[in-house]
Amino acid sequence: MTLIVLNFKTYRESTGPEGLALARICQEMAREHSLEMVVVPQVADISTIAASVSIPVFSQHVDGVGYGGFTGHITAASLKAAGASGSLINHSERRLRLAEIEASIAACRQAGLKSIVCTNNVATTRAAAAMGPDYVAIEPPELIGSGIPVSKSDPEIVDRSVQAVKKIAPDVGVLCGAGITHGEDLKAALDLGSQGVLLASGIIKAKDQRKALEDLVAGAR
Amino acid sequence: MTLIVLNFKTYRESTGPEGLALARICQEMAREHSLEMVVVPQVADISTIAASVSIPVFSQHVDGVGYGGFTGHITAASLKAAGASGSLINHSERRLRLAEIEASIAACRQAGLKSIVCTNNVATTRAAAAMGPDYVAIEPPELIGSGIPVSKSDPEIVDRSVQAVKKIAPDVGVLCGAGITHGEDLKAALDLGSQGVLLASGIIKAKDQRKALEDLVAGAR
Amino acid sequence: MTLIVLNFKTYRESTGPEGLALARICQEMAREHSLEMVVVPQVADISTIAASVSIPVFSQHVDGVGYGGFTGHITAASLKAAGASGSLINHSERRLRLAEIEASIAACRQAGLKSIVCTNNVATTRAAAAMGPDYVAIEPPELIGSGIPVSKSDPEIVDRSVQAVKKIAPDVGVLCGAGITHGEDLKAALDLGSQGVLLASGIIKAKDQRKALEDLVAGAR
Amino acid sequence: MTLIVLNFKTYRESTGPEGLALARICQEMAREHSLEMVVVPQVADISTIAASVSIPVFSQHVDGVGYGGFTGHITAASLKAAGASGSLINHSERRLRLAEIEASIAACRQAGLKSIVCTNNVATTRAAAAMGPDYVAIEPPELIGSGIPVSKSDPEIVDRSVQAVKKIAPDVGVLCGAGITHGEDLKAALDLGSQGVLLASGIIKAKDQRKALEDLVAGAR
Repeated sequence: MTLIVLNFKTYRESTGPEGLALARICQEMAREHSLEMVVVPQVADISTIAASVSIPVFSQHVDGVGYGGFTGHITAASLKAAGASGSLINHSERRLRLAEIEASIAACRQAGLKSIVCTNNVATTRAAAAMGPDYVAIEPPELIGSGIPVSKSDPEIVDRSVQAVKKIAPDVGVLCGAGITHGEDLKAALDLGSQGVLLASGIIKAKDQRKALEDLVAGAR
Repeated sequence: MTLIVLNFKTYRESTGPEGLALARICQEMAREHSLEMVVVPQVADISTIAASVSIPVFSQHVDGVGYGGFTGHITAASLKAAGASGSLINHSERRLRLAEIEASIAACRQAGLKSIVCTNNVATTRAAAAMGPDYVAIEPPELIGSGIPVSKSDPEIVDRSVQAVKKIAPDVGVLCGAGITHGEDLKAALDLGSQGVLLASGIIKAKDQRKALEDLVAGAR
Repeated sequence: MTLIVLNFKTYRESTGPEGLALARICQEMAREHSLEMVVVPQVADISTIAASVSIPVFSQHVDGVGYGGFTGHITAASLKAAGASGSLINHSERRLRLAEIEASIAACRQAGLKSIVCTNNVATTRAAAAMGPDYVAIEPPELIGSGIPVSKSDPEIVDRSVQAVKKIAPDVGVLCGAGITHGEDLKAALDLGSQGVLLASGIIKAKDQRKALEDLVAGAR
Repeated sequence: MTLIVLNFKTYRESTGPEGLALARICQEMAREHSLEMVVVPQVADISTIAASVSIPVFSQHVDGVGYGGFTGHITAASLKAAGASGSLINHSERRLRLAEIEASIAACRQAGLKSIVCTNNVATTRAAAAMGPDYVAIEPPELIGSGIPVSKSDPEIVDRSVQAVKKIAPDVGVLCGAGITHGEDLKAALDLGSQGVLLASGIIKAKDQRKALEDLVAGAR
């Protein structure tokens, strides 16, 4: 089943009560279209949203540290307790060191959280896949927030990522991000062999978020 | 009034339901002893705790970024929406760049959150105070979690911090951290001119958290 | 005497042999115009340049760590041994944590190196000055590399920085950076009470570096 | 041929003139024993050492940035111009973000520098190898500087790393680090299938560096 992951980032339109409203729209969309939709609000909003919707709620970031003296860090244990069921790791706006990514993947696995590691090119996608997360999400940084869909403007990077992951770690899913907004972008991404998309501004900043989502999911299977 | 700030860090004993229970104990303590107590849970726990207690709930960290494309960051707006009323900034376990500290202080101010900037020596205390947060909290790193109270083992650093802040930014309060556990540590801190203490492991890891807090607050005024 | 600090950054026109040639031009300029000129090449170029010119050679960065297990760090001791006589600290392209800045200033002082801490606004200038470096250099990030001189486009930030430093730490000199290229920019900076300028692209990327420097120093005293 | 890489770190015994003396000893050792020895001094010492010895001189760190506005960064171009022929990347004392590691490897390749990416466990070794550096160097952090050789205390991590790299990227060499001091440690490392070792304190801090090196190279082939 097609996976659509909506990153709320820190937009005004997806923070606090607005974030909750958006999560509810996503839930309806998932039901109506038999899609797997994941919402990714800010950490402070996770518990409220997770208590209100039944679709998976992911964190935008998780630190690979456990219980102890790690003031200001986001632990997998606290996310799990708040109702999250997974996390983005190494998003282009929150890059991590290699050892931290590995520790975050391990922390997710141990806490029963799914992990999506974001990458910026084929080489880093290979590296991320080699550490065995649930998904890698390839997002060429120059296309993020551009409205130019990677699945159409740079299909080769998606295709090569899919092939590379298949070879190195066939159990790891591939998502496709950056510039995805419309149904045709999603369709192109799926045609290239990805399992779904990671998207944000195209939906969050849309005048009518529901309509934007309707347009998007029309490209799903 | 003496200010006691309890940093929950990421200890098992202060995460999720355990964090909520501890926050409730702190609330009782504040009422019984007419103290100002602040609890500082993990970000994912803030909304639940803030909905359950009436004492101030602070975040362990805040990023000085606003609405927009800042995936994985902790915004002042999201903290405020979740019920927080302030934040630690630059804790020794989550050090920030100078420009980030200044941006975090400004973001707190704009969102109506109090700010406590942690520092490691007299020079950085001077620097932090010069940026005008609500409080600076001086914590010599070598004493954190040591059980050796800074107010007794290194009174001079507290005294010099208090004097320096008075000179550079008299409106900024001074807290005293690192190794504080007992009532006499708190009393020593207040005698040196600080407005209160920032503490963590001595209480969180105590066999009986309530008893440990009772011992501590006995040193308050 | 007016101080002119030329940051070589990592431009092709100031790396390796080109950097050495540029340092020699700066030396001639300093002699001809009785100016204090400081060149700031990349670390790998310091020893060669310091062996070839008699004007001060600064590093673009220094870590506040000493002898020991600090692989990949730039120590004050190694800079001193290579012939450097000072360092930039916290440049906008290499921001440091507050505690690191303080440690870097201390390391410079101990090794007999001068320190210039870069800042981005009045609040961080106050903070930097409070730690007692030899100089602070105020550079509003939005003007760096813009060709719009801070001394003319935002004279107030320079004026307020100069006043703030005078009050908090009168021994600390103030430099003015960002967008400085021409003699009139330098003159405006000096008129505002600064001791000199920190500049880069306007000179480095000039078709004729010597001519660009001639134009600049015409504004000196 | 066995590769021995000596990381000078920032020890007093390997900074400035002491670093040059040590590099000369390494050169003699390489000649006498027909070994490939690489010295890795601090960046500020590279040009002097590279001009004085004919064995390869590597940097302890390189940033994956090119010509431009990257003040305080260590560029591959500047290292090459100073006489370096390679660099460590992501040493445990200077960890990098995943995208930075990839950019550093690419920058080395473009500048004609060899790259050695340091890793901390089998998963990160797989990831590093997937990005195609010349070498990966596996160093369990808890053994660094311990005097307990990884090749003897944790042979399995070396063995599994060698196997993993062989599968994912057979052209990438594997070095073995952490706690290596004596000839038998080196021999054990080679027996496990590694191409050589990365070492530091055991030699640098030895009372008699030459003697320590003699002891080490006795284990080579």
